[in-house]
Amino acid sequence: MKSTPWFLLLATLLSTSVSLAAEATHKTDTERHIPAHTLPVPNTVSPQLQAMIAAGTLPVWNVHPQSVTEWKNWVKKWEAVSMKVLPELREKMGVTVTPSVIAGVQVFTVIPKTITENNRDRLLLYVHGGGYVLFPGESGTSEAIMMASHDHIKVVAIDYRMPPDFPYPAGLNDVMSVYKEIVKTTDPKKLAIFGTSAGGGMLLSMVLRAKDEGLPLPGAIAAGTPWSDLTNTGDSYYTNENVDNVLVTNNGLIRELANLYAHGHDLKDPFISPVYGDMHGFPPTILTSGTRDLFLSNTVRVHRKLREAGSIADLIVFEGMSHAQYMMLSPDAPESQQYFSELSAFFDKHLAK
Amino acid sequence: MKSTPWFLLLATLLSTSVSLAAEATHKTDTERHIPAHTLPVPNTVSPQLQAMIAAGTLPVWNVHPQSVTEWKNWVKKWEAVSMKVLPELREKMGVTVTPSVIAGVQVFTVIPKTITENNRDRLLLYVHGGGYVLFPGESGTSEAIMMASHDHIKVVAIDYRMPPDFPYPAGLNDVMSVYKEIVKTTDPKKLAIFGTSAGGGMLLSMVLRAKDEGLPLPGAIAAGTPWSDLTNTGDSYYTNENVDNVLVTNNGLIRELANLYAHGHDLKDPFISPVYGDMHGFPPTILTSGTRDLFLSNTVRVHRKLREAGSIADLIVFEGMSHAQYMMLSPDAPESQQYFSELSAFFDKHLAK
Repeated sequence: MKSTPWFLLLATLLSTSVSLAAEATHKTDTERHIPAHTLPVPNTVSPQLQAMIAAGTLPVWNVHPQSVTEWKNWVKKWEAVSMKVLPELREKMGVTVTPSVIAGVQVFTVIPKTITENNRDRLLLYVHGGGYVLFPGESGTSEAIMMASHDHIKVVAIDYRMPPDFPYPAGLNDVMSVYKEIVKTTDPKKLAIFGTSAGGGMLLSMVLRAKDEGLPLPGAIAAGTPWSDLTNTGDSYYTNENVDNVLVTNNGLIRELANLYAHGHDLKDPFISPVYGDMHGFPPTILTSGTRDLFLSNTVRVHRKLREAGSIADLIVFEGMSHAQYMMLSPDAPESQQYFSELSAFFDKHLAK
Repeated sequence: MKSTPWFLLLATLLSTSVSLAAEATHKTDTERHIPAHTLPVPNTVSPQLQAMIAAGTLPVWNVHPQSVTEWKNWVKKWEAVSMKVLPELREKMGVTVTPSVIAGVQVFTVIPKTITENNRDRLLLYVHGGGYVLFPGESGTSEAIMMASHDHIKVVAIDYRMPPDFPYPAGLNDVMSVYKEIVKTTDPKKLAIFGTSAGGGMLLSMVLRAKDEGLPLPGAIAAGTPWSDLTNTGDSYYTNENVDNVLVTNNGLIRELANLYAHGHDLKDPFISPVYGDMHGFPPTILTSGTRDLFLSNTVRVHRKLREAGSIADLIVFEGMSHAQYMMLSPDAPESQQYFSELSAFFDKHLAK
């Protein structure tokens, strides 16, 4: 059987009986040629997500800052946009956000109106996304706010250092410092880490580092569409190019961010691209992506790797969704509600009380 | 927040600061335009799957038989191809296959060399795929053979009636007849149903029918890339058109198969397109697809629906894989091994001993 898989055998035999086959030749090209086409807005997603898909691309995917100053100005613009939204979000979600410092690192503690009985001694650590460059300070707390409110749990959001001033490994060192300090007083079995995009990648690298350093591992993790591979490797970088209306391509802004963050380090270093790490012994993990997500392969490759290593690993793939849109939608939107509900249920199942 | 989702707010604000944005205009088109491009063969899948991707399309996706005779001739050709492969597969897998009749329906019982202690009283029912038209008789038993051998368990494969002579609901009636007869003597908690493509769709319809008829439900089910929606609805019918090198498009052979099977019945009838059914109370379900699968949306829409209904539902998405290639690869290939291992572990976890 080794030399005659079904597919090739069928192709060979059927290509000799062409009377009914409109396409008689068995193509043996090594690339697939995709003709130009248009994608309709799917009617199988919520009206809110339909609107987001119909809105086209964010005008940022092809940004190429030429200097440190340009990078910083660009980061400031995004920061201002985020800060503008946050007061209304905090009010709506009914949370308080308080800055403090843990192990020399700035954090923001998000406390919801009520904390459920099960969650009284539990804690979530949050690692924000933004390509390891965007959302400094409080501007990176929106997903933490929504999660704290939805799950009725305390969240500590880590404001790790970022490029252009502080490339790898400064940010990873920061999140590790906070983690080490927190597990001194919090039972790691009652602690989960979550984050999206670069935040999802960073938290996978955190667990790899914690394993390396012989630290206790968290009780559960949630990596939303994690940036697990900073190279050009992964099928959906090609199949979902231009299909994803958030990231659009792996060869625009994302290349700039990857190079700025890695700062000359090998992009395949497992602490930079955690899909290349040894994932044996990982805690229960829930991963989220979408069918249009440029990072779909980043997500499913980690999922396969975790399950092959014997870990508990759940996968959520949202219909029609591009990169991380579950956290860009209004928190009332069905896909947003479902994302936070999935994480809440997963943490409640796998964390100690 | 309802009226100002992040995404739109960001787009609006950022489009006013265009100095760094190469693409300054916030597009508001309702379709996405995808330029012509080529997809390389991914190096993130096994060499066996790489070969299958590089081999191009099967010469069948654009077949349009014009008469009952043409359909029957075409079915016979595929049947002959399959029958040619089966002796070697049975030999390699070490199984015996015995025909018999249950409740007036032809079945094939697959017995592996050894049956594990846990599986001694368990039984798997198998519903083959092939668009509800292909693989009559013993020719539809290959996946059953691989599963029986891999999981060391007894499998009964159902040879349900098919078009052109027997369109819907003949086939569904047949699988229901077998199911009803089997649960008279087999504890349904020790019984799982599995199948791929049309088989995956059919078994979801079986559970909907069993619910409707007040029958006991199976202990677990495994729907591989199920044909859960026979209409043109579902985002991956568009995003993975021409990307999937097995099915290629929803508007070629698949349209012919859907119309032949439904035979004038509404394609949105939940017993034909089970994604439209009420899935509350479904047993634990494992679903499998691939990032290139034309049926990726068929798979994740069912997964979301099951989890929203409160069922246990696991999702597997293979990197770079088109429709159902896990069962077309040599059984030695990693993705094939992983597929059958996932099903074995899931059934072992959820079935009673």
